[in-house]
Amino acid sequence: MKRAIVLFGHGSRDPAWRRPMDAVAAAIRSRDPDTAVVCAFLEFTDPDLPSAIAELARSGVTAIRVLPMFLGVGTHARADLPKLIAIAQERAPDLLIEVAPAVGEHEEVVQLLAEIALRRTA
Amino acid sequence: MKRAIVLFGHGSRDPAWRRPMDAVAAAIRSRDPDTAVVCAFLEFTDPDLPSAIAELARSGVTAIRVLPMFLGVGTHARADLPKLIAIAQERAPDLLIEVAPAVGEHEEVVQLLAEIALRRTA
Repeated sequence: MKRAIVLFGHGSRDPAWRRPMDAVAAAIRSRDPDTAVVCAFLEFTDPDLPSAIAELARSGVTAIRVLPMFLGVGTHARADLPKLIAIAQERAPDLLIEVAPAVGEHEEVVQLLAEIALRRTA
Repeated sequence: MKRAIVLFGHGSRDPAWRRPMDAVAAAIRSRDPDTAVVCAFLEFTDPDLPSAIAELARSGVTAIRVLPMFLGVGTHARADLPKLIAIAQERAPDLLIEVAPAVGEHEEVVQLLAEIALRRTA
């Protein structure tokens, strides 16, 4: 089984916007050089999610874990994402696609953000 | 010095969107019941940032730490937020307002998201 991770974020007209996503992708590569990692976006930034997944499938990937890079869980995470996953799955029926809970839904993320919020710089 | 934390997020038409932000606010209250915590939003969801900060100042808060709840760092974090902080500061000149780096700019967040992305559920 050849695995890949897709970080799925909103996208922005601002090219600097994606830097934290690229940093997460780099941290994943550094932790596990054998897992392919790509970023994909809902709008403004390429590639879109079905294209990114199709490209991974073409390269021989057989299992994909999608991490939705959304702190809030609204229309993008609960409606747009499942539709895009369905499109991707239709294009690559044999591909195993797992969608993780959105970043903001992980209790450890919630606790880390609370800790950061409480830090005093002065 | 009476301190408060403001979690500043994008906002959404979807009322469920803010649940992770409310979870972070609850985690902060649970860690430090003496620090006031409020959520404020760029659009769609009330209150806006200057209103939230003005309300805290009226309640006797003298120092505020704003945590921008943005994973990407684009126009919202780098242009909209400083403008809103300037408006808030003008309304409450004596208030100490500190703006933390956006959530996506914290190295610990980047590393935690990399760790979560690499988890295997199957």
